[in-house]
Amino acid sequence: MNAPIAPPSLKVALKARPAPEVFLSQLHQRFGPQFSAAMAVREQHGRDESAYSVTPPAAVVFAQSTQDVADAVALCAQHKVPVIPFGVGSSLEGHLLAVQGGISIDVSRMNQVLAIHAEDLTVTVQPGVTRKQLNEALKSYGLFFPIDPGADASLGGMCATRASGTNAVRYGTMRENVLALEVVNAQGQVLRTGTRAKKSSAGYDLTRLMVGSEGTLGVITEVTLKLYPLPEAVMAATCAFASVADAVNATIQIIQMGVPIARCELLDANTVRMVNKQARLSLKESAMLLMEFHGSPAGVQEQVEVVQEICAEHQGEAFEWASTPEERTRLWTARHNAYFAGLQSRPGCRAISTDTCVPISKLADAMLDCVRETQESGIPYFLVGHVGDGNFHIGYLIDPNKPQEVETAERLNRQLVQRALALGGTCTGEHGVGLHKMDFLVAEAGAESVAMMRTIKQALDPDNIMNPGKVLAI
Amino acid sequence: MNAPIAPPSLKVALKARPAPEVFLSQLHQRFGPQFSAAMAVREQHGRDESAYSVTPPAAVVFAQSTQDVADAVALCAQHKVPVIPFGVGSSLEGHLLAVQGGISIDVSRMNQVLAIHAEDLTVTVQPGVTRKQLNEALKSYGLFFPIDPGADASLGGMCATRASGTNAVRYGTMRENVLALEVVNAQGQVLRTGTRAKKSSAGYDLTRLMVGSEGTLGVITEVTLKLYPLPEAVMAATCAFASVADAVNATIQIIQMGVPIARCELLDANTVRMVNKQARLSLKESAMLLMEFHGSPAGVQEQVEVVQEICAEHQGEAFEWASTPEERTRLWTARHNAYFAGLQSRPGCRAISTDTCVPISKLADAMLDCVRETQESGIPYFLVGHVGDGNFHIGYLIDPNKPQEVETAERLNRQLVQRALALGGTCTGEHGVGLHKMDFLVAEAGAESVAMMRTIKQALDPDNIMNPGKVLAI
Repeated sequence: MNAPIAPPSLKVALKARPAPEVFLSQLHQRFGPQFSAAMAVREQHGRDESAYSVTPPAAVVFAQSTQDVADAVALCAQHKVPVIPFGVGSSLEGHLLAVQGGISIDVSRMNQVLAIHAEDLTVTVQPGVTRKQLNEALKSYGLFFPIDPGADASLGGMCATRASGTNAVRYGTMRENVLALEVVNAQGQVLRTGTRAKKSSAGYDLTRLMVGSEGTLGVITEVTLKLYPLPEAVMAATCAFASVADAVNATIQIIQMGVPIARCELLDANTVRMVNKQARLSLKESAMLLMEFHGSPAGVQEQVEVVQEICAEHQGEAFEWASTPEERTRLWTARHNAYFAGLQSRPGCRAISTDTCVPISKLADAMLDCVRETQESGIPYFLVGHVGDGNFHIGYLIDPNKPQEVETAERLNRQLVQRALALGGTCTGEHGVGLHKMDFLVAEAGAESVAMMRTIKQALDPDNIMNPGKVLAI
Repeated sequence: MNAPIAPPSLKVALKARPAPEVFLSQLHQRFGPQFSAAMAVREQHGRDESAYSVTPPAAVVFAQSTQDVADAVALCAQHKVPVIPFGVGSSLEGHLLAVQGGISIDVSRMNQVLAIHAEDLTVTVQPGVTRKQLNEALKSYGLFFPIDPGADASLGGMCATRASGTNAVRYGTMRENVLALEVVNAQGQVLRTGTRAKKSSAGYDLTRLMVGSEGTLGVITEVTLKLYPLPEAVMAATCAFASVADAVNATIQIIQMGVPIARCELLDANTVRMVNKQARLSLKESAMLLMEFHGSPAGVQEQVEVVQEICAEHQGEAFEWASTPEERTRLWTARHNAYFAGLQSRPGCRAISTDTCVPISKLADAMLDCVRETQESGIPYFLVGHVGDGNFHIGYLIDPNKPQEVETAERLNRQLVQRALALGGTCTGEHGVGLHKMDFLVAEAGAESVAMMRTIKQALDPDNIMNPGKVLAI
């Protein structure tokens, strides 16, 4: 597990397979105005929010139905052309780059909420529905879907990367909240991976095999999710600490006490400054926990009392409350925009984000030295953490034109991953492997487990057309 | 989805592959006193709690370590001899029968709790540790593991069948509570499927592929689980209803209100009678909900008030409280023994148990007609339900020597499954597919999804040695 890991690199090994003219012309014929080979459209689909350079696909198909996806994949299968599913383009590890050529299937027009079963606490949506769109649609039912990566990501993309976010500490991740999928496999066939039953022991768990497979096993065309009643009472608060260490140690104790806290997020002073500037807030510029409590009024009161006591033991200041829904929205929007606030703090920069997650008792061990080393490196950074889950992100704000900075950031990232693995953690809590963490995955899972993944991939996609070059080297 | 399904059958299609003498002798040599070919031992390992007849393996290996399992599987792989993992033998769908011959690997001696990480709420155990043994070991830490199938099953077996039980309504099933596994694959290699991090997006979810694979993809040799703090307050109560329909409708409303009830179990009057007799209890012999509430004292009080009100609306009588830990233990032991109480109510009978699970709003639709049809059939039965999850079991108490009874029970089971699938449910909430539900799985998942499962199985186990003949026809 702890052999030295090669640093990841922003250099992309291109192995573009040409898309035959006859294929492109058949695709164009089938899809008419839903087909585009315009360079601007291709470039928009050959990038994500990572620091990688644009690597455009040969063409883009704007799917409007499962049948569209099935037809496009069947044509790709026939010509052995790569397929890259595209939601809103908010992934962070180079997932969308056409490193082996091929076409992008954009599902953003498949954006219908198909069925809200309020009486069963389930919903079925098309993959292009975004998390905010879904929660708008659910509002009048008194229900919500809690998983919230920073960006307003598509639910198909959130399945593909096994996303989570600030509410995962209480509600789990996409792993726990997807009931069933409809998927187009590498042969262009449509299949379903589950039912609306809350639990099942019926055969292999294809749902969870697809969740987190990053487009390498199939294209997700429909998603059935668990929902939750909007909590009767919600309270949000911030608490300032003298140091990151104090905030982390308070978090560890909150989790160990079993407090069902709904959100427990960390920002360091440097990041609070960036967020204040971008969102015009006036949060105290020190290490800070942003917290939210869900439950009955009495239940929330109980949680708050326990957490206030724990924070005080770690030299936390008095809570600042975000009492109204508007104040809470402003606070969490600011938190969600920390990534972009970081980018804006250094014009022209790109972010290389770490994503380690460790058992909660190891959080201080995993984090504090890395933060110090980052500070010593002189590279500007932001630090945000879903610390209640043991997951945090250091975003190195590098100038992509300065190879020395890129190299330093990658070295720091690698050191952090090595430390997390040694502590029983993972290289990626929620962003996925993509291009950037393929070596980390081998270090984490071991050669035999990666070989098992590869066997599955090769059996289900023998021509390696589904998002090739990501997750696993074939 | 709704094509007619052939009724399952208790007739087993035997395709025994002979275990070569040289193989048995090598196995004996390697394992010495841990090897047995005695008929009594073989017979004990060729059965489970289902109504199937004993189908013994050629020999049994009592593994004491991961290396033992790896060596046994490697030898089986070399000679293409089937491998059937065995925990305590409490499965219900014929999982353990040696329908294609081969050897049983008994892991019950691998019963060490390896590491309790109380500070991270995780534990790592060998696969032969049983759920009661684990909770004994956790008691002094103030922690517990909630998943509780009726039997005192092994945790390896509970992973293999994706088990759940009475607490799943609040705490989820094995699917949600296994963090990582160590597995011996069909080639005899040892691999790990995850870390102790609470969440991860690192590659394909091999953990959840193995959970529920019923021994057909590998042998589980180590299990890392999530733990929970013992709740500060626990209250248990029973509530009697005039009819099963009233009890079910109360349940639906409890779940739809979002009450975080820890247990919500149904017994019908007939089953309460059996339980009273077996456990020497004096529960009122009517349809009944058995409930448990976990939380802070105030939180439990809030839940109880809401649930009492809902039950009263459905003509529920006043709650009978099981206040002391001893009373609660007695109540839940009685509930867990309902299966055996049913068997005892008709000497010489065997149980064929249904296991459908439907979206909560469909529970009455799925259940009430089936209960009536069962009553009309004249076959004795028990009825228990994890109704908070939409999951219930009718146990047909058949005389295995009366083919007419077996046929009627299987017809009723098939009708129930067809109804559940049409309502968006599953044929098995927690028992697994085994031998008995292979046709149901095809009806539920569809040919394309089962083909995907088969592709995975064949890729990972090309010689079909891992528990062959179960889950999928190859």
